[in-house]
Parts: sequence; C-alpha cells; structure tokens
Amino acid sequence: MKLARISLTMTLVLGLGTSLGLAQASTPRNIIYLIGDGMGPAYTTAYRYYRDDPSTKAVENTIFDQLLVGLSSTYPDDDTYVTDSAAAATALATGHKSYNGAIAVDHQHSPLVTMMEQANEAGYNTGVVVTSQVNHATPASFLAHNKSRRNYNQIADSYADNLLKGLGSADILLGGGTEYFQRQDRNLVEEFINYGYQYVDDLNQLTQLTELPALGLFAPSGLPPALGSTNPNRLQMMTDKALNLLDKQPQPFVLMVEASQIDWCGHSNDIACAMAEMHDFALALASAKAYVDKHADTLLVATADHSTGGLTLGRKGDYQWRGKQLPQINTLPKAYAKILLENPNTLRDIKQFSASWVKHINLSLSDNQLAILQQTLLDASQSKTAVKKMASAIKRRIDALSYTGWTTTGHDGIDVPILAYGTGANQFAGHLDNTEIANKIINFIVK
Amino acid sequence: MKLARISLTMTLVLGLGTSLGLAQASTPRNIIYLIGDGMGPAYTTAYRYYRDDPSTKAVENTIFDQLLVGLSSTYPDDDTYVTDSAAAATALATGHKSYNGAIAVDHQHSPLVTMMEQANEAGYNTGVVVTSQVNHATPASFLAHNKSRRNYNQIADSYADNLLKGLGSADILLGGGTEYFQRQDRNLVEEFINYGYQYVDDLNQLTQLTELPALGLFAPSGLPPALGSTNPNRLQMMTDKALNLLDKQPQPFVLMVEASQIDWCGHSNDIACAMAEMHDFALALASAKAYVDKHADTLLVATADHSTGGLTLGRKGDYQWRGKQLPQINTLPKAYAKILLENPNTLRDIKQFSASWVKHINLSLSDNQLAILQQTLLDASQSKTAVKKMASAIKRRIDALSYTGWTTTGHDGIDVPILAYGTGANQFAGHLDNTEIANKIINFIVK
Repeated sequence: MKLARISLTMTLVLGLGTSLGLAQASTPRNIIYLIGDGMGPAYTTAYRYYRDDPSTKAVENTIFDQLLVGLSSTYPDDDTYVTDSAAAATALATGHKSYNGAIAVDHQHSPLVTMMEQANEAGYNTGVVVTSQVNHATPASFLAHNKSRRNYNQIADSYADNLLKGLGSADILLGGGTEYFQRQDRNLVEEFINYGYQYVDDLNQLTQLTELPALGLFAPSGLPPALGSTNPNRLQMMTDKALNLLDKQPQPFVLMVEASQIDWCGHSNDIACAMAEMHDFALALASAKAYVDKHADTLLVATADHSTGGLTLGRKGDYQWRGKQLPQINTLPKAYAKILLENPNTLRDIKQFSASWVKHINLSLSDNQLAILQQTLLDASQSKTAVKKMASAIKRRIDALSYTGWTTTGHDGIDVPILAYGTGANQFAGHLDNTEIANKIINFIVK
Repeated sequence: MKLARISLTMTLVLGLGTSLGLAQASTPRNIIYLIGDGMGPAYTTAYRYYRDDPSTKAVENTIFDQLLVGLSSTYPDDDTYVTDSAAAATALATGHKSYNGAIAVDHQHSPLVTMMEQANEAGYNTGVVVTSQVNHATPASFLAHNKSRRNYNQIADSYADNLLKGLGSADILLGGGTEYFQRQDRNLVEEFINYGYQYVDDLNQLTQLTELPALGLFAPSGLPPALGSTNPNRLQMMTDKALNLLDKQPQPFVLMVEASQIDWCGHSNDIACAMAEMHDFALALASAKAYVDKHADTLLVATADHSTGGLTLGRKGDYQWRGKQLPQINTLPKAYAKILLENPNTLRDIKQFSASWVKHINLSLSDNQLAILQQTLLDASQSKTAVKKMASAIKRRIDALSYTGWTTTGHDGIDVPILAYGTGANQFAGHLDNTEIANKIINFIVK
C-alpha cells in the first residue's frame, strides 16, 4: 500500500467489485505471483521423478503438474534470445522487454512502471518474498528502477527513498540482504523501522511479525541453500507469514514470491541443490494454492524468468534418469567439499572417506568408483581453487550416477512453464510471452 | 475402416451423433493425431527463433505457440523414466505403458488394443502418414503388435496379414519402407494391391492416389531428410493427400501423422537437420489446422513421444542462441561430409574449401576458424569412419556458431508439448500423461 494515500473510496470500490459475485468472477481480488528463477521444464519434470514415491508403482503428479496451464517465452529485447534475470524480471514486473541487466528501465534508462507501483497506487497491499537478497534482480524489478542490476546499494537505497517520498514499497518484504541494508554509510533497516516497519532478522522469529508493514532480512546476502539448511522450507515459511499478514488487512493484496536459488543451483550445475530448492518452491506453491482454496477470489500465477544451465534428464546415450536417488543426498556438494578440505585425514583414508561419502552424499559407488573419486578429490585439494574443483568433482560424480546433463553455466532460451489457479486463471493458458503474463496481471490491478 | 465388416447401422449412429449439434459439440467426428518424434520443448522453442523474421523487430509466434495447451509426461513402465519410441508410441496408441521396445504389447507380450483397431471396429476410416518406414516403432504401435520394434519384417507382414484376416489396416498408409514391403521372400506391396489398394512409390505421383484404400512407399527405409531434399515438405504433401482422400468418404476418420525424423536429427545431434524437420512438421500441422478450420467437427491433437538429444539453447556460459542463422544452411552436415570426402581437392585448398562452405553451410567463419575446421576435416578424412567424423566436426562447428547444446545421443526424460485444436480440444489442457492423451482420444472413438 502507498501509506501516505490510502483511499477509503478505493477500498470501498474494490470491495464492491469483488462482492458483485458472478459478474466479476473473472477479476481476482488478490494476486499471488510466484517465480521460480531458472525453472525451465526440465526442472519441473525432474522434480516429479525426484519426488516419485518408491513405495508405489505409480508416478505421482506434483503441484507443478496440477497447476500447469501453458508455456512462456522469455527472450529479451535484443537479438540474443537468451535473457538474464534482470531483463526477464523487468518483463514479468512491467510488461515491457528491456536489455539484459535492466531493472525496470528501458533502453534509455527511463523507468518502466511496475505492477507493484500500480498496485500501491490502486490501494492494494503488496508483498515481496524471496530467498535471494531482497535487492536482487527479480525483486528489484518489482520495487525499483536502475540501469544495472549490479548497483545493489542504489537499489536498496531506493526502497527506503520511495518510502520517504510517499511512493510506497512492499508492505511486507522478506528475504536476505543485511549487508546492503545495514551499511556503514546508511542503515536502511533503521529507516524502515522509523517508518513503522516491524523488523526481524532471524527466520525463527518470524512469529514476531504480527502486522504490516514488516521487514525480515535473514542473511547478509542470499539465504542459506535449502539443501543442508536448518530451515529447508524457508520460502514456504516466509510465504505463509506474508499471506497471513496480508490476509488480516481490509485491502486486497499483490504478493510476489520468488524461489531465487533454483537458478543459482542451475548456474553451478548442481542437481541435488536444484531439487532441494524446487521442493521448497513446491511447498510455497502449496501454501499459495491452499490460500486460494480458502479464498476463491484470489488468483495464483506461477512461472519462471528463464531456464538455467541447459539441464536435461539423460546423458551420453543412456536411456535413464536416476533422480529418485537424489533425496538421499544430505549435504550440498560445495559444503561437502569444504568439510573434506578441512578434514584431510578423512580424504586420505579410503575407509573414512567411504563413511563420509555415505553420511553426506549416500549414492552407491563401487569400490573402484570410490577410489577414483578419492584420487580426483585429493588432486583437487592441492589446487588454489580447491573447494570449487572438489565441489565440481562431487557434482560430476552425482551427474554420472543420476544421468543428469548440463550444457552451460549460464541461462538457456527454452520456454518455461506457466501455472495458474483461482479467479482469472483461465487467461493464462497456452503459449504466452513473459510480457503478456505481466500485462494480464496489470490489467487486473488497474481494472 | 474394417473392410470386411462395414456397419451401416454404425455409420448412421455416428452420423446422427455428429448431427445433434450443440449437445454433441464436445465429441469430434474426425481425429487428426500428430506426433513429432523427439520434439521436446527445446525444439518448439528453437523453431520459433529459427523462424524469427529478420526483417521485423517482433518475434513471430509459430503454429506450435498458437496450438499449445499443455505438457505431457513420457516415462515408460520401468524405473528408467526415459522412454524409447516404441514404449512411448504404445502409450500414445493404446493408453497403456509398456517396456522400452514394445510394439503395442504388455510385459507378457500380450496385445494391447490400439486406437486404430478400435477405430476400424467402430467404422472409421483410418490413415497413417510418416517420414520413417511405415513399419517403424511409432506407426507400428498403431497398426501391429510385436514384442520387439526390431522385428521390422514381422511387423510389415502383420499389416498385410491383418487385411487378409479381415481385421483391417490403415485405409491410407504413406511413408517409406519398400525394403520391408518388397522382399525376396514376400511382396507385401503386391498383396496390398491385390486387396484393392492403389499404390505409388514416387512422391511426385501422389496425385495418382485418387481414392481409398491407398498405399505409398517412397523410399527403401525412411524418406530422405528434409534438409537438402527435393521435397523438403514431404510430410505436408502426404498429410494433404491423406486428408483429401479421407475427407471424400462418408465415414469419419482417424489419421495419425508422425514427423519421424525430428528424433533422428536429435540422435545425431544435428540442429540444422532438426529445424528442417520441425519446419515440415509445422507445415503438416498447418494443413491439419486448415482442415479443422473448414471442418469444425474435427479434433486436432499433437504431441511428441519424448524429447531427444538433451537439446538446449545455450552453451558454455554464453547468453545467446543464434538459431536465426540456421536457415542459411543448405546441405545436411552428413551429406556435406560425403561431398568433401568425394572431392578431396576442395578440402585441401583453403579457397575452394571456403567457397564450398559458403555454398553448403553458409555460416560466417573467421579465417582462423575456417583453417582450423579445414585441418580437423582433413584429419578426419583419413579415418575409417571418415564421414561420421567429418559430419561430427561440421555439426560441432554449427553448434558453436549457433550456441546449441546437447547432452546425449539418446532420448531425455523432459515433458513434451501438447497441442490441441477443434472439437474436444479443451480436454487436453494442462499436464497429462501420454497414456491420458491416448485414453481421451480412445474415449471419443468408442463413444
């Protein structure tokens, strides 16, 4: 909401609109917009087989299957056809394509009005919930304007500046980013608190956020990865809190939820990491769907900004994908590499290494495979970039065991799934460009 | 149609059903079922950018975009999650999953009734149009039963045997396969002709097929690849002929059309080959859509049996895919390799090689890239598998220039697009398993 200008008239008009019932049934009161950063169709397919219940013959459908309605193109406004997260988020937030790197600005660096700005203007409450820092490309494109996604401090500053200017920000903002919000030169957290925001910096203190406006920053930058985290379902926890507080208010709301780190796992070609992030996103989606089940006047739309990593399910001619084993992995490959590097005796002794592999990764290896991996990791541990090289060796071993393929450490251009549910969901079926998804949502907001 | 047992009653009942108008509007009279073998979402996305009109700023939607309604899972009935074409075609033809290699049989090798058999029984005319041999895995799973897709002669024999037994076959059957149908030990073409089929063996004689039943076999095995072919739109030509002859009859029809060779290009990791096959499939789809536009009582459903090659649009960290250049390629890389091998002077002289590259492949290469490729091809030309190695070098150069990535020479497990249009199309929206697609079509047939 735009705190300085809450309009009682607007609230009444909106209330009236939604109370008209059938005649207005295609226009949602509330909008929950979920983005799986990097979540191409390979990720939603993989997640189904990753979650396949080994105790049943059937392959169970996932929430992605239940809500699928179409596919979206993601190309940016240049001739590359492969977008970055900033251009994609600009399209998804404003309905306009721009260049890679753009945060809700056009090629001339002029601001493109975002759906959150329009929602503030129209009297909605707004929320942004992410697992990255809250000033990362995707959330930034909903709340700020900048010629470059890399200007993290400027973007964070603009969130507070907008409050002071009476332009509003998100009424609930949850994610990471204390290193940008509590700087030597400017303490933005203090500014938010002075502006009336409740604030917590520990996920376990989420219950202390009892009303809007509210800010939660739970890590210096991005939140810890889901895999191996003490709070692997942190996106669902934050989504539940945001829905709970937004629902208490008389105003309708627009909530954007991003599973930011699916993309990060994709960049690092880490399938175990990606599936754990997909699971947290599935749980957040389930929370959003449960909200719609109780509030039929709400629209849920979910998509991805692009696909990452050139992930495919199959490699080197083999007709199989063994993702069902991946839930056995307890530790992020990079974290496991650090553990091994800090405990050199474990790596030197094959029995200790075997026990450690079972504890952390737990995928079956033959004695020969284990010995080869041990040697590869010992060699890598002597490198200046030991953790990176060791993590890479562990990930490539997991890829070989699960038959996972990757083609890039960047993004790829493949269309991404669109999910929709609730009032207005039928508008999102079939093939849509990412700008069309945004424009359909914006049309609901400025109705 | 089942020639021996055409039922006037059945025809009248079907006629009555479709004449009921609105009340029956959700049940189609005719069904056109198109399968892009190997066509995962990377292929439909790539095709959009391959066809992007360079003279306009907009990225034009394709017919795949226009007709998209959902995604289908393709896993077979084992624990691999990655299907072969036989198990997938069995699922798409019978509504039952089976093992990789199965042609419309279950694990016990018992026949699974196919939709074409049910259509014959119910008084429909039927058609099968493919660019592979007509006894290849996909068409075979609609017309035969065999424990192994590799039993090509048995499968072909069963087509003729079924006619003799009065069980019917396809009333129009177009594709390749003379080496299986005109053998020393049995001449099946003659048997079809004796059974009343019109027969042609030259695509340019398609006009000579004037009524059902009709057989056309235009190559010993699969048809020549679209890229570099004198009839690059041969799938559309055959589809047009089949629709024309089926439409002349009083009975309703079920027509299966397969773009068989998208998959073959995927197996050989050949993006130029794949896009040319996708274009022929797009044209065949356009013909099918045009038929539905004129006959609103017809249903068009299109999907893929699986995705092939782990194709992705992006490689090695670069954020771009340069598929828009691929229409410049005039010659299949394998065919170009043969040309170079047969003209060794061309390859030895850099000027001649440069001119030849421009004539056949026509993608920009720096002098240095050209010299490196020349040397690679010269080295490969000394190998015992020279054509394969040279073709591979050419394809990898095209991949590098277009930023195309592959992860396997086999299939991958990623969900595939579902397209639908016309009467009953709304039943195919969202996520469906491949068996559900078949069962929905079968329910229309046995209504």
